[in-house]
Amino acid sequence: MTQNKTIMVALGGNAIKSADDEGTAAEQFANVYKTSRELVKLIKAGYRLVITHGNGPQAGNLLIQQEEGKKLVPDMPLDVVGAMTQGQLGYMFTQALGNLLRAENIQTPVAALVNQVLVSPDDPDYQDPSKPVGPFFTKEQAEKLAVEKPNWKIKQVKPESVEKRFRRVVASPQPKANVEVEVIKKMIDAGIIVVASGGGGVPVVQGPNGLEGSAAVIDKDLAGAKLAELIQADVFLILTDVSHAKLHYGKPDEKNVETVSLDEMKKLAEGGDFLAGSMGPKVRACMKFVEAGGAKAIITSLDHAYDAIQSGYGTQIVR
Amino acid sequence: MTQNKTIMVALGGNAIKSADDEGTAAEQFANVYKTSRELVKLIKAGYRLVITHGNGPQAGNLLIQQEEGKKLVPDMPLDVVGAMTQGQLGYMFTQALGNLLRAENIQTPVAALVNQVLVSPDDPDYQDPSKPVGPFFTKEQAEKLAVEKPNWKIKQVKPESVEKRFRRVVASPQPKANVEVEVIKKMIDAGIIVVASGGGGVPVVQGPNGLEGSAAVIDKDLAGAKLAELIQADVFLILTDVSHAKLHYGKPDEKNVETVSLDEMKKLAEGGDFLAGSMGPKVRACMKFVEAGGAKAIITSLDHAYDAIQSGYGTQIVR
Repeated sequence: MTQNKTIMVALGGNAIKSADDEGTAAEQFANVYKTSRELVKLIKAGYRLVITHGNGPQAGNLLIQQEEGKKLVPDMPLDVVGAMTQGQLGYMFTQALGNLLRAENIQTPVAALVNQVLVSPDDPDYQDPSKPVGPFFTKEQAEKLAVEKPNWKIKQVKPESVEKRFRRVVASPQPKANVEVEVIKKMIDAGIIVVASGGGGVPVVQGPNGLEGSAAVIDKDLAGAKLAELIQADVFLILTDVSHAKLHYGKPDEKNVETVSLDEMKKLAEGGDFLAGSMGPKVRACMKFVEAGGAKAIITSLDHAYDAIQSGYGTQIVR
Repeated sequence: MTQNKTIMVALGGNAIKSADDEGTAAEQFANVYKTSRELVKLIKAGYRLVITHGNGPQAGNLLIQQEEGKKLVPDMPLDVVGAMTQGQLGYMFTQALGNLLRAENIQTPVAALVNQVLVSPDDPDYQDPSKPVGPFFTKEQAEKLAVEKPNWKIKQVKPESVEKRFRRVVASPQPKANVEVEVIKKMIDAGIIVVASGGGGVPVVQGPNGLEGSAAVIDKDLAGAKLAELIQADVFLILTDVSHAKLHYGKPDEKNVETVSLDEMKKLAEGGDFLAGSMGPKVRACMKFVEAGGAKAIITSLDHAYDAIQSGYGTQIVR
């Protein structure tokens, strides 16, 4: 039977926010419930789950609110903003999953953890950060921010013709370790469904007096793969908005990648079919997990989570 | 020895924000470190800690930011705001305590949980809510909000002469249960220092489809006392800005309350010396814990936490 196998699930943006959502709490809860219903199928089939999720739209909105409110109250740095979205989304998943499980008389407890992820201050991405975060600014605002926030890097991200064309960019360093991994392991052992590493984790670096927050955004799939490796998950499952990673994406000879070995996937990835900023990081995260000793990593859509685990559906990368 | 006794610690506002702080992240971290240094003394003495904290200034600032940003992005309801502050402050305590413990070669893990606290929708406080939250509004803004947010209650809280004299008020219902208590117990058993019930917990009520968030603020000392009861803590320790609860407060015959029995404290409380909204709820929370079977509840200042536990300092209410 499938009893006791651990699946590390990484939920994409569509698990929390639909493309045409405005971003209200009611919309987010509705999506989180839809997502949680799929996850409950896996829990009912006997799997232990550890769940991670993105936080892009939530952190983005919070950064906009902070910018609008900063004449009245101090804005929080990016590490604190990340922790706040972990609270927000951790709450939504805890409530939705908890309610759905209790409705089925399943007593498995669910809990969301505030979770720090260690990165290296020497990560090359700090040299030339490229991950845009928060609101768009005019040239004047950007110049003012360059003085107000000397350690912000601001780049032009839209053409000259657009008024608000500047945006803050931050590094997206590689996850090195999960600070609360021992806690997460103990929680898994105690039979708890854990929500962790939300938004890729709160990025921290080792400073002179211990860990300290870093103005960065860790890719949530890479952070999820690292956690999957550390907890020795049986499967790393990335749920996104497409059923498969695809070769020749958007071309007439577009083709699903089905079950492939790590070596085969490496060759396919070298072909450059998987877009940077989109499928590329997901494929890379899956390969990292299998390279580190994981048995299987899967990319599929949310509504195929159960089929992927039970019947081999989706893009499956095996050793 | 003191090994293995569990102390439920409730931290007052001064543990995170000093009176003259502007509320920056750096200030909050500095206060959290100062607080954590006191808590480390107890951990080194062999006690297990469960920690809760207020969130008034943090939730207040977030509500102001949301109000300022709401023309651009949707504001979150009060339950989600509470969860966000649990992420924020849970992160700060996890990082500070973790760093201080690692610096002393203590391997005890620390983790902060997103935590829901159940209240009754029939709680009388919902009938006439009185807890002000978020920004102050002008009469015009208040009238507009009455239309925009039909389930908000807005009250005049400052005299006619003040322009921004209106404020949203919410209920402060009694905590009935801690939704994640089983998780918290498992974490304590696993030797983890747990930060839980932050800001009094995210208030939830039982609805037709399970738990749902409620626009309310639970008193953090009462929620802490409830959690202390549920986890069968040996001591419930409220750390605030004064060394003792006082009789005849501010009068020439002002007098510290030292060690008293529950019955004695009840009589003193009936005398009306402990102010509502200040020492009153702390005394009530302590009495509730001892009434529910707890051996000892203590009120003292942050810098006397260790003395209170080891040498009986502060206001100590015993069975």
